[in-house]
Amino acid sequence: MAGKVFFSVTMSLDGFMAPEDVPVEYVFSPEGRNDPRVHRWMAKWSELQAWVFPLRFFRENLKLGEGGEEGRDNDIARETFERTGACVMGRRMVDGGELSWPEEAPFHTPVFVLTHTGRDPWERPGGTTFHFVDDGIESALDRAREAAGDRDVRIAGGAETIQQYLDSGLIDEFSIALPPVLLGTGIRLFDHVDPDRPTLHQTRTDTSSRVTHLTYTVGKR
Amino acid sequence: MAGKVFFSVTMSLDGFMAPEDVPVEYVFSPEGRNDPRVHRWMAKWSELQAWVFPLRFFRENLKLGEGGEEGRDNDIARETFERTGACVMGRRMVDGGELSWPEEAPFHTPVFVLTHTGRDPWERPGGTTFHFVDDGIESALDRAREAAGDRDVRIAGGAETIQQYLDSGLIDEFSIALPPVLLGTGIRLFDHVDPDRPTLHQTRTDTSSRVTHLTYTVGKR
Repeated sequence: MAGKVFFSVTMSLDGFMAPEDVPVEYVFSPEGRNDPRVHRWMAKWSELQAWVFPLRFFRENLKLGEGGEEGRDNDIARETFERTGACVMGRRMVDGGELSWPEEAPFHTPVFVLTHTGRDPWERPGGTTFHFVDDGIESALDRAREAAGDRDVRIAGGAETIQQYLDSGLIDEFSIALPPVLLGTGIRLFDHVDPDRPTLHQTRTDTSSRVTHLTYTVGKR
Repeated sequence: MAGKVFFSVTMSLDGFMAPEDVPVEYVFSPEGRNDPRVHRWMAKWSELQAWVFPLRFFRENLKLGEGGEEGRDNDIARETFERTGACVMGRRMVDGGELSWPEEAPFHTPVFVLTHTGRDPWERPGGTTFHFVDDGIESALDRAREAAGDRDVRIAGGAETIQQYLDSGLIDEFSIALPPVLLGTGIRLFDHVDPDRPTLHQTRTDTSSRVTHLTYTVGKR
């Protein structure tokens, strides 16, 4: 059975995924124009001037050592990772990630990157290989589906990439982690969505003390 | 003990409360530019060309007769009504309501209307009296608090009125009913929110088959 195509992101209560006009390497930096309050359920900037990842799954995945919190947030982070057989992402996300991801990039799957200019694959230790695709979003998705086998394809981001796939009717389902944060400005997850396009069905809601996880399936046209 | 100041609205998943540039009387009309999909958990336009209110509370409140669905959505609609001792609303909401509310307006409390031009109180059968306040949002709230006694004051809307109270630090808590709907365009609930202003705490999440109810308290500056 073929896998599903999904995205899973964190969005502020007023609809923003990230601060606007900020290099990606600053999004997770305290020097950024907006502090990354939306991601606080996953990562906190500590008084020791270092990122702290409270959840057990991220500590394992990033090789930060033993321990960490379990519970619903952790289960969801782990389930999202484990269902994913391949990722698709926009070029800017990779550009920023090259500066901020650890040497062992955190995807551990093939990643298909939307680009206008070809580039040789970029292989990282730990199973993440970035393939640069210059012939459109459907081609990138086809290659990701093939690589994923019976696991799912994650449209990893950013917002513009997610919107392209959503507007093309290529998303089967998605999850939003909604923290109690108003950013006021930034890049919206849902911007210029064709209002006649997606019919959504609410399939699950989970709440932790930090965030509400909302899950939807997208109806076919 | 003094009551709380709250708002309780329905917002599409992409952040809109209402279609843009549409007279209020059309918001709940099938001829409107956008169908009122966001409000479907409360009201549906039937094949008989009439509004159907599926929840028992609304059927009682609007004197539509016996019956109606019970359950979490209905409990929340009833609790929201019962906690409210007075309302504050913007002038445009009243202008539209004059055309669309039944003779017995559905508030059944004093309502303080923000306006730039005075007007005599407008008394409706069933306990709703509209008082027109022309000396600012704090004055309107003071009068609403006094009228509400130990019950709560509801900032009823629209979006601009809610934003004014939120930006002034006058909201204690709020609820959002979040249906699985993308509108794509319209009037945003959170537009131009000062990003340094409100600190939110997530206090409750309830889900029905139709909608997710999110409740937050607002931290004091």
